[in-house]
Amino acid sequence: MGLLSPVRAGGAAEATTGDAAWVRAMLDAEAALARAQSRLGEIPGDAARAVTAAARDLRIDPSDLALRARDAGNPVVPLIARLRGAVPGAAGHVHRGATSQDILDTAAMLVAARTRAVVLPFLGRLLDALAGLADAHRDTPMAGRTLGRQAVPTVFGLRAAGWLTGCLDARDRLAAAPLPVQLGGAAGTMAGYGEHALALLPLFAEETGLDEPELPWHTVRTPVTGLASALAGVTGATGKLATDVILLAQSEVGEAGEPPAPGRGGSSAMPHKRNPVLSIMIRSAALQVPALVQIILSSQVAEHERPAGAWHAEWQPLRECLRLAGGAAETAAELAEGLRIFPDRMRANLDGLLAVLAEHGGAPGVGAASALIDRALARHRRTRPGGCGDCGDCGDCGEAAAR
Amino acid sequence: MGLLSPVRAGGAAEATTGDAAWVRAMLDAEAALARAQSRLGEIPGDAARAVTAAARDLRIDPSDLALRARDAGNPVVPLIARLRGAVPGAAGHVHRGATSQDILDTAAMLVAARTRAVVLPFLGRLLDALAGLADAHRDTPMAGRTLGRQAVPTVFGLRAAGWLTGCLDARDRLAAAPLPVQLGGAAGTMAGYGEHALALLPLFAEETGLDEPELPWHTVRTPVTGLASALAGVTGATGKLATDVILLAQSEVGEAGEPPAPGRGGSSAMPHKRNPVLSIMIRSAALQVPALVQIILSSQVAEHERPAGAWHAEWQPLRECLRLAGGAAETAAELAEGLRIFPDRMRANLDGLLAVLAEHGGAPGVGAASALIDRALARHRRTRPGGCGDCGDCGDCGEAAAR
Amino acid sequence: MGLLSPVRAGGAAEATTGDAAWVRAMLDAEAALARAQSRLGEIPGDAARAVTAAARDLRIDPSDLALRARDAGNPVVPLIARLRGAVPGAAGHVHRGATSQDILDTAAMLVAARTRAVVLPFLGRLLDALAGLADAHRDTPMAGRTLGRQAVPTVFGLRAAGWLTGCLDARDRLAAAPLPVQLGGAAGTMAGYGEHALALLPLFAEETGLDEPELPWHTVRTPVTGLASALAGVTGATGKLATDVILLAQSEVGEAGEPPAPGRGGSSAMPHKRNPVLSIMIRSAALQVPALVQIILSSQVAEHERPAGAWHAEWQPLRECLRLAGGAAETAAELAEGLRIFPDRMRANLDGLLAVLAEHGGAPGVGAASALIDRALARHRRTRPGGCGDCGDCGDCGEAAAR
Amino acid sequence: MGLLSPVRAGGAAEATTGDAAWVRAMLDAEAALARAQSRLGEIPGDAARAVTAAARDLRIDPSDLALRARDAGNPVVPLIARLRGAVPGAAGHVHRGATSQDILDTAAMLVAARTRAVVLPFLGRLLDALAGLADAHRDTPMAGRTLGRQAVPTVFGLRAAGWLTGCLDARDRLAAAPLPVQLGGAAGTMAGYGEHALALLPLFAEETGLDEPELPWHTVRTPVTGLASALAGVTGATGKLATDVILLAQSEVGEAGEPPAPGRGGSSAMPHKRNPVLSIMIRSAALQVPALVQIILSSQVAEHERPAGAWHAEWQPLRECLRLAGGAAETAAELAEGLRIFPDRMRANLDGLLAVLAEHGGAPGVGAASALIDRALARHRRTRPGGCGDCGDCGDCGEAAAR
Repeated sequence: MGLLSPVRAGGAAEATTGDAAWVRAMLDAEAALARAQSRLGEIPGDAARAVTAAARDLRIDPSDLALRARDAGNPVVPLIARLRGAVPGAAGHVHRGATSQDILDTAAMLVAARTRAVVLPFLGRLLDALAGLADAHRDTPMAGRTLGRQAVPTVFGLRAAGWLTGCLDARDRLAAAPLPVQLGGAAGTMAGYGEHALALLPLFAEETGLDEPELPWHTVRTPVTGLASALAGVTGATGKLATDVILLAQSEVGEAGEPPAPGRGGSSAMPHKRNPVLSIMIRSAALQVPALVQIILSSQVAEHERPAGAWHAEWQPLRECLRLAGGAAETAAELAEGLRIFPDRMRANLDGLLAVLAEHGGAPGVGAASALIDRALARHRRTRPGGCGDCGDCGDCGEAAAR
Repeated sequence: MGLLSPVRAGGAAEATTGDAAWVRAMLDAEAALARAQSRLGEIPGDAARAVTAAARDLRIDPSDLALRARDAGNPVVPLIARLRGAVPGAAGHVHRGATSQDILDTAAMLVAARTRAVVLPFLGRLLDALAGLADAHRDTPMAGRTLGRQAVPTVFGLRAAGWLTGCLDARDRLAAAPLPVQLGGAAGTMAGYGEHALALLPLFAEETGLDEPELPWHTVRTPVTGLASALAGVTGATGKLATDVILLAQSEVGEAGEPPAPGRGGSSAMPHKRNPVLSIMIRSAALQVPALVQIILSSQVAEHERPAGAWHAEWQPLRECLRLAGGAAETAAELAEGLRIFPDRMRANLDGLLAVLAEHGGAPGVGAASALIDRALARHRRTRPGGCGDCGDCGDCGEAAAR
Repeated sequence: MGLLSPVRAGGAAEATTGDAAWVRAMLDAEAALARAQSRLGEIPGDAARAVTAAARDLRIDPSDLALRARDAGNPVVPLIARLRGAVPGAAGHVHRGATSQDILDTAAMLVAARTRAVVLPFLGRLLDALAGLADAHRDTPMAGRTLGRQAVPTVFGLRAAGWLTGCLDARDRLAAAPLPVQLGGAAGTMAGYGEHALALLPLFAEETGLDEPELPWHTVRTPVTGLASALAGVTGATGKLATDVILLAQSEVGEAGEPPAPGRGGSSAMPHKRNPVLSIMIRSAALQVPALVQIILSSQVAEHERPAGAWHAEWQPLRECLRLAGGAAETAAELAEGLRIFPDRMRANLDGLLAVLAEHGGAPGVGAASALIDRALARHRRTRPGGCGDCGDCGDCGEAAAR
Repeated sequence: MGLLSPVRAGGAAEATTGDAAWVRAMLDAEAALARAQSRLGEIPGDAARAVTAAARDLRIDPSDLALRARDAGNPVVPLIARLRGAVPGAAGHVHRGATSQDILDTAAMLVAARTRAVVLPFLGRLLDALAGLADAHRDTPMAGRTLGRQAVPTVFGLRAAGWLTGCLDARDRLAAAPLPVQLGGAAGTMAGYGEHALALLPLFAEETGLDEPELPWHTVRTPVTGLASALAGVTGATGKLATDVILLAQSEVGEAGEPPAPGRGGSSAMPHKRNPVLSIMIRSAALQVPALVQIILSSQVAEHERPAGAWHAEWQPLRECLRLAGGAAETAAELAEGLRIFPDRMRANLDGLLAVLAEHGGAPGVGAASALIDRALARHRRTRPGGCGDCGDCGDCGEAAAR
């Protein structure tokens, strides 16, 4: 429940990735498969309805299922037994032609899709907040810092525009990640589906709300690696933001501060201290996800028609990636929306740098900072779901033309 | 609860690493600290007893604690509030001079020690079983296989002796890993403990049952990296065993089989099939732990007196390492104790190799296999807790001399 | 030179990623920048031509440059000194407005682009070979294997179609990876370029042949992470192929064999033995690249305007990813083009499985295998550079319509 | 040559890990094996001398060997051919009873031992310098910083004592890592060595200067994982030091500075700037090695008698670990020996903190800092090779008693 992972404790992505959510997704996958088959006349409509109702109403204790999962090495086998038991008259129509991996892979994509659905709005809020910072601070001068040292002047708006761009990249990649159903049967030949096999794929996809795959992907793990890489993009982009906030909020720098909240940032030993705890939590996610992605990338080496271990090694890391990225996005939205900027400290720190630069021939200006900020803002507006909200017909989002 | 991690579902290490176990360990750490301080006269004995009793009896909902942990970025701050609330008269003696990291690091070591205590017996059973296989099969010829192909003759006992040696290495490293208390106070100076500071370390260690550190290790993470590396040794050595079993159990090889059990190894699509499911689960752990260790090794770069993120990134990976290694050890004990060996198939497969070798000048013998097996067995006997059980005064374990 | 990395020894990607290639790319980046600036009138055309000529002709010893790189922590600073020394009259026009990272990042993209240019043809040959196998063996029955055991019948053509699909995914992602120039100046403001700053980006891109970035990406590492993820796709997809070949080539399975070549696959101890050495080398790459990608994903957390270490940690892992993926692709093309398939052994092994299945109610057919193969082949034809070559106006590639 | 890895460019560990050093180590392993066999009378003394002389004098082009290594997947096979060619009369005595892995594993341990021999002195210098800092600054007050913020007072000497402790841990683990010869023959049975097999192990060890193994470890990779973990300890401990220096050297903090050197720390765009380049290079190593260790830990899963890929995947990461740890140690010695500390800035920064603390009830003292420093210093003296040099008979090192 996030006791050791505060970044996602109580967050939306924690709820969508918990054991109950996985059980729900497996049941939904079985029901959707039955409905898809009934649409092709492979099983009776009554059976599909019975399976759907049973899948909806079945209450399965994840702990019990977990224990039983040890017999087969995965939780689908005992889950099917429960589902069949719940539809005595239609037991033979449950899981027809499918194999455990079809259901677990499809369930993983369902969990991912449902998690993405709750995470994208946080990323949207985050992007709006970062765009607001970039726009508001296009003329707020600060010291640019490279390799740990003050370098030359910049504006804070450009720093924020960089955060915005990184998070836009992350949002776009996550939003675009294909999340297809998996269906191949025991050895990926779809042997259980007769002449209707290929016709079943779009229907199964439709019944789940997931994408249609071109082919079964039981040993072609592109959907999983693509998703995992996209999630690393989320923790990477928010981790960059968080690390910058930690550095800007240092006592000696003092250029930024986290949004205050009663009780937040407290220390067990130092009552005077406010820690940048939102940023610390986000950063902790960024430090973990790349290693979890390593596991998932390694699992591409999936031998034969189903690997003996590599597939099983994906499940928990994928869940962790979803949780941590979700928690990072949710926490980053809160951070960015309430981020406090202290232009006076920026100015004071910059003055020290300008004095040094004056001894070396003077300081450069901030160049094209404003134009670069505009570019980032335009991309944000262009890609914002629903447009920018205050349409002056700039045309960036293409909505003006559509009117 | 292991739904996505069957290797540890319901296992002993799952129980010792769950949220409740961490809460317990944190409370135990606070109580032990109070007792240690009272032994030095720093706090009254009554206060220490009250804190100990309250810590023992307190029921804390981990989910609630997890939520509250977001305020400080760690669960110790809200836990202290609860504990202080439970000892109104001694609230000021709770957590005196300590910082959150002192308690969480000490709790992590307690969780590790308690997990190790349940895992070492599984490793002991595993070692005994492997030693039994090595001894029983010292004259069971089989084809040695290198780079995926049959190579030259060996005996199965030597393969088992190799498994034994790897698992002995892993057991020894895990058993030897120092698990010290952490105590430094806000900045590692032990400023809250006055003249008794250094005297407190051995007492705190004694009260917890953990090792005494030479110095506070809040930013010197050797205890954590040493433990994590040792756990990777456990999953590596059992993963080697499991992968070999998977390969030997292939339909076309047929030289080994997993212990049969009702319902185990079943498939959702193929009733005729028995999958090497214990080995698959063990292998899934071996494919994950090295990446988790990567996170922990990276967290050595712990800035200043407490890092802003690197420390927080250790917790969940360390727990996963403990769980996965524990599950792998427990599952491997079951695997090794019931492993079925088929000497006839070994002989038949070897015959094919011998025929090839005959065309190339004949086959080598099995060399020093028996002597090498003896070495591994002697090391096992020498290091076996309690000796080998059937003492013929071989002297290997040093117990004969002691009698 | 690949002594410890035979997968890429002497390969095309080794040549394009060596020290000389990086020095060449850095010089090319400087020259392209000068030319782009001269097109905007920022520096004289003569100066740009002088810089271009000097960059082309300069011979720099990488070892010497490497030593000097320790002073600045990167090799660009000493390289500029050499380049300026070679154009005494235009020294002030070298590297104008740029910072080391602009040149090194752009050089990395140039190295990547040049490596991709030599790797894509290998992937093309690999895809053609895999498509040929899929097509030729659509009716070659074999035992499908899951979780290490024979499962149900399939055809080898479908296995090959799976390899094809994985490699198509990998090729598509690599081909689509954006490889932009980087140009931001000291702090990313482009302060050195006056009013022409934004106009310089497309020209710099054009002069290098790289993509135009939307914004400077010095601390938004999407181009690097996208490339690295794509390279892990290449080693993952070829690693799956290689691992399957190793398993199919086992002495006891015997269904596939590597292309024979004089001296290849030999053993230092066993003259009778042929090892699947191409596959082993490919697999060694697949076991390394995910960890290297981990480093690159972690480097997204790039503090301030230039990180103190994270950027530097990217260089060697990125080079290794390029080398290993390139070597894997080149080796896999050789493997796939010469892969030997033994239908008789497939049939014999399958017969054993069919006997087991007969006892359990009979064997399923191979379902939609042929239709699934057709899908994979169609995708291959559709995306093949230049079309499929033997156009029967199927329309898959869109070329028929264009005629 | 370190062009993309300045941390080790031109360093001692670069020389001991280059291709030439590996070729040398392989030749030395073959020669040592011949000598060991001759001592048992297995091969003539003349043959052993001839092989030794030829191995000493043979000049092998690593690039050529690398190319030829593709045939067998490892460089030993072509190396043996060259060596046999150089001793026409004793060709049959070269590599007798051994397999490629015996030579390459033994060579890896030789490379590691030779690298360790040059790295330990750097660690010794580093430790002396850190001890000097801890001792000199036991009364230099500074602000302790936790979670990115000023926390409570400490002394700089304690920070340095923490660096010292971490580096002592790292040095001790590296110094203690067993580096054994490997010898098992084709399948680990030592079949080629007849009755003398076990007697050969200590002699082979003696002839190489390496440790004697208890058993062949071709598939029990503890020596490699132990070494890699120790090397991660070196980059972790020096990475902590380097990161702290980067943070202390920030323009706004100004409490530490790198040793100045002509031309060092320069920027290509900012002549006024001095970058903490030694620290940056060290940090870049710390960000890479954990991922490389991940590869090596994963390679524990070494199937059968020699894995098809996992062994091959170890070589280059192990070399990189050696190089990066060696470069980090050498660079850290230079950094620590010349580290500039600015007590006035420490005092000024602390004053700000004390003012805050005064508002919250006053500041704690620095507690047991001095005693803790003493502990670290005592450990350093106790474990210092050759003692502390200025013996006042403190007894810490045990040398007084011995006199």
